[in-house]
Amino acid sequence: MPRTHAALPRLHVEPDLAANAQLTLGKEQSLYLAAVLRKNVDDEVVLFNGRDGAWRARITSDSKKSVGLELVEQIAPQSPSSDLWYGFAPLKTERLDYVIQKATEMGVSTIQPVITRYTQVARLKHERLVANAIEAAEQCEVLNVPAVPTEISLDRLLDSWTTEQGNRKLILADEGENVSSPVEAIAALRGTPVGILIGPEGGFSDQERAKLRAQPFVVPVSLGPRILRADTAAVAALAVIQAIIGDWR
Amino acid sequence: MPRTHAALPRLHVEPDLAANAQLTLGKEQSLYLAAVLRKNVDDEVVLFNGRDGAWRARITSDSKKSVGLELVEQIAPQSPSSDLWYGFAPLKTERLDYVIQKATEMGVSTIQPVITRYTQVARLKHERLVANAIEAAEQCEVLNVPAVPTEISLDRLLDSWTTEQGNRKLILADEGENVSSPVEAIAALRGTPVGILIGPEGGFSDQERAKLRAQPFVVPVSLGPRILRADTAAVAALAVIQAIIGDWR
Repeated sequence: MPRTHAALPRLHVEPDLAANAQLTLGKEQSLYLAAVLRKNVDDEVVLFNGRDGAWRARITSDSKKSVGLELVEQIAPQSPSSDLWYGFAPLKTERLDYVIQKATEMGVSTIQPVITRYTQVARLKHERLVANAIEAAEQCEVLNVPAVPTEISLDRLLDSWTTEQGNRKLILADEGENVSSPVEAIAALRGTPVGILIGPEGGFSDQERAKLRAQPFVVPVSLGPRILRADTAAVAALAVIQAIIGDWR
Repeated sequence: MPRTHAALPRLHVEPDLAANAQLTLGKEQSLYLAAVLRKNVDDEVVLFNGRDGAWRARITSDSKKSVGLELVEQIAPQSPSSDLWYGFAPLKTERLDYVIQKATEMGVSTIQPVITRYTQVARLKHERLVANAIEAAEQCEVLNVPAVPTEISLDRLLDSWTTEQGNRKLILADEGENVSSPVEAIAALRGTPVGILIGPEGGFSDQERAKLRAQPFVVPVSLGPRILRADTAAVAALAVIQAIIGDWR
């Protein structure tokens, strides 16, 4: 995709975006634009809210506490929202930021932290995860910011799956043997909503794996003969899903 | 794949590995084992050299300057070497380490730095790239360390491709429009050796792209509607290649 207005800063905002609308940024975004990026009156930025596409906007007042903007024109229509659920066992902090950035780039619609027996991070800062997803969308020129629900235990996720997710299948990236090559298994899911679950660095416990495999909605697939780090596995699995049944087609 | 002896440190060494062979580590690896990991006589490690599989070895002397080892038994046969060429335009340093780690995890056989017009790093420390690849193989339990040739200009790469690479096709991850969905384009290459070229953060120049597209051995594919960072694009493209025509089958 050609990069349109790639040089302009991109900001995610809450209000509706429409021609000639005026809006005022909050304190943090104002400080970022006015002090960090040193933007002044008449400089331009790109705004998006996840609903109304991307808009070119002009700075009308440049206080470090409150930057005013006027919308000039829509430069990209809202991209169709994807429907791809991504569950992951939280990793050490630096990799956590990375995983959320990558999942956003790969076009997931939901990023669900799932607490497993061998999960390395017990207390998650939920606001930070949400902020990471927004920042990733700003940087990667993605117009849909993934939803980031609060964490859920693996048990509760599985027990409530059918109620919450309907007929969605859950693709399980499994290091165990005797699992399908991913291409055929994923191609067979065309037309069905899917999710992908990536386990923690230490893998699932035997009990967790047995419970996962006993669920009728779980589709175990292999990600090849090498051991992948959880963050690599996430990008790899999402790429194969997007290529075969997702929006890369 | 189940993790065998996952708790033991893994070291890449040069000598041949065989039952009862004795070997002495160099200064850096000795310091690492004896001082950093605090390993002592009778502790065990796993050794591999890219040819003879993985071997369990026992420490026989533990000086910080020179650790002696005796090979106990082969714990994994040498995995078949892959044949997947990966070319990339070098990124900022921190992402460079990451890209080499990820390419090694994804099972490439060659990691070729390619200098393009918008390449961000002009002077590469070649020894560091090689050390990164070895470290990544040690950490990810990969038994084949990718070759890391010194950098080459895009022009020279293309001009010498057929002479150097024979009938290998070069898959080009292209942000331009009018390129094939990757699944069919990659599936059509089954049985042919392939490489993948990922451009720099700023993309290829128009002239570079025109030259690339004019080569009969170049196969442009799309990695979907979103703009991916170069490091994400690398993992994503390698995953789709390994899943469709590589060793994930």
